[in-house]
Amino acid sequence: MSPDLAEALNTVAARIEATLDALLPLPGGPERRVVEAMRYASLAGGKRLRPFLVVEGARLFDVAPGQALRAAAAIEMVHCYSLVHDDLPAMDDDDMRRGRPTVHKAFDEATAILAGDGLLTRAFEVLADPATHTDGAVRCALVAALAKAAGAEGMVGGQMIDLAAEHRATEIGEVTRLQRLKTGALIHFACLAGPIMAHAPAQLRDAMHFYAQDFGLAFQMADDLLDVEGDAAALGKATGKDAGRGKATFVSMLGTARARDQASRLADRAAAHLAPFGAGAERLRMLARWAVERRN
Amino acid sequence: MSPDLAEALNTVAARIEATLDALLPLPGGPERRVVEAMRYASLAGGKRLRPFLVVEGARLFDVAPGQALRAAAAIEMVHCYSLVHDDLPAMDDDDMRRGRPTVHKAFDEATAILAGDGLLTRAFEVLADPATHTDGAVRCALVAALAKAAGAEGMVGGQMIDLAAEHRATEIGEVTRLQRLKTGALIHFACLAGPIMAHAPAQLRDAMHFYAQDFGLAFQMADDLLDVEGDAAALGKATGKDAGRGKATFVSMLGTARARDQASRLADRAAAHLAPFGAGAERLRMLARWAVERRN
Repeated sequence: MSPDLAEALNTVAARIEATLDALLPLPGGPERRVVEAMRYASLAGGKRLRPFLVVEGARLFDVAPGQALRAAAAIEMVHCYSLVHDDLPAMDDDDMRRGRPTVHKAFDEATAILAGDGLLTRAFEVLADPATHTDGAVRCALVAALAKAAGAEGMVGGQMIDLAAEHRATEIGEVTRLQRLKTGALIHFACLAGPIMAHAPAQLRDAMHFYAQDFGLAFQMADDLLDVEGDAAALGKATGKDAGRGKATFVSMLGTARARDQASRLADRAAAHLAPFGAGAERLRMLARWAVERRN
Repeated sequence: MSPDLAEALNTVAARIEATLDALLPLPGGPERRVVEAMRYASLAGGKRLRPFLVVEGARLFDVAPGQALRAAAAIEMVHCYSLVHDDLPAMDDDDMRRGRPTVHKAFDEATAILAGDGLLTRAFEVLADPATHTDGAVRCALVAALAKAAGAEGMVGGQMIDLAAEHRATEIGEVTRLQRLKTGALIHFACLAGPIMAHAPAQLRDAMHFYAQDFGLAFQMADDLLDVEGDAAALGKATGKDAGRGKATFVSMLGTARARDQASRLADRAAAHLAPFGAGAERLRMLARWAVERRN
């Protein structure tokens, strides 16, 4: 990763950590436990990829940084809630995440379910708050777009397909659709939040839309490759899970060489979509390249 | 129950059923299963108490019925999601609800978790849609108020306390606070949705606020009484659960006689708060009386 990109990622990560910390204050009452779990789940570091996409996408449209950070924090809450629920024994049954026990291991299952529910709910509350944007119609557009990306037409639908698909053969078109729902929809919203907040013209909004589509698929292909070839210690979670579960992935469908080749071409295409933004979008271009070359 | 109130409840219940049906269309893809579970959880009949509070509260302020029904459907989705998650084995572990197998029994645990997530998410999407109100700021006020009522400061926080409290003694003040969070907050939002949509003056909004507070507590006391004295067949769920779990309830704290007396006085007080609305609020007054006299 270039030092420029690394520094920019670290800067956004630190700001998101501070924003989440402020948006999730610990109450004094006995409900404190669920907020502790919400904080454990969301203040756990991580790449903060989606917040970075929000912040960089918003910067291209001169959105106020403080407002972009709130939208970025909301989307990260939704991402973290999805990890907490996906890790549950009834779902993917994972014990480790980012090198730490998952929420239901560190707390218990009931608390993990409630913490996920609480993060999802809080995300919408943050978006609806006037501090996120002065125009109520824009705030509602963010709420609606996040809900669409996170719900049964997006992430929740994708996880449903993923669970159902674990023990049956799947065609490449189905794998692509699953990933567009399960991980692509939220990445897509992250890229579109800035344009929505800025009332961006259709042409520039479309540029971000196509970037998001190709970036999302490239990122997921790289994830599938890391599950086969990656180092568990660097990843902070177990590898080889997909094969162990008989999951159809881009790698099981295409093989590692073709998957790597396609991911690389998608990353190039994602970067090319950003031509209308000129040099201002250089970090997002570097991010696409990094997405397919990363080791964790 | 008076025939008037019964007819009004049935009318709202039928309209909510139709509204939910329209708002939860079945997709064609393999994610269909989660939407089937969302429909199973929310099209299951039930009293539709919260939608009734929304619709009657909105009528007092001349809110367009179609808009009130959308807000009512959103709050019912949140109520149903909370039942699906609360029924999970890791939470209250209930097999029956409204005389039918709970969602994780009729489907499976993973689908139940996702169906709850999907309903919660869809609720916010419905509120944020311009069809719910022309003013974006009003729609955001609904989103924010529902999120506050449903999240860690409300329902989720209440359920956390409830789980933690199952095996320790609790004072009456703590039981009251638990119920204000766990069931009171959502009932409160149901009563306030109409005033919010109508930009109601503070005095009338306060009248609904105080009605909601007393009604919510009275309703919960009656629920605790039914768990001790009710008929499982009429309720469609097991009774004696609270005592079996060692839960502190209004009944275990006050005894049945005092709990019944207090519930009755709270219902009277709730009705009295509605004086500023005159005869127009008669159904809400009857509802308060019914809440503490019902058999299911």
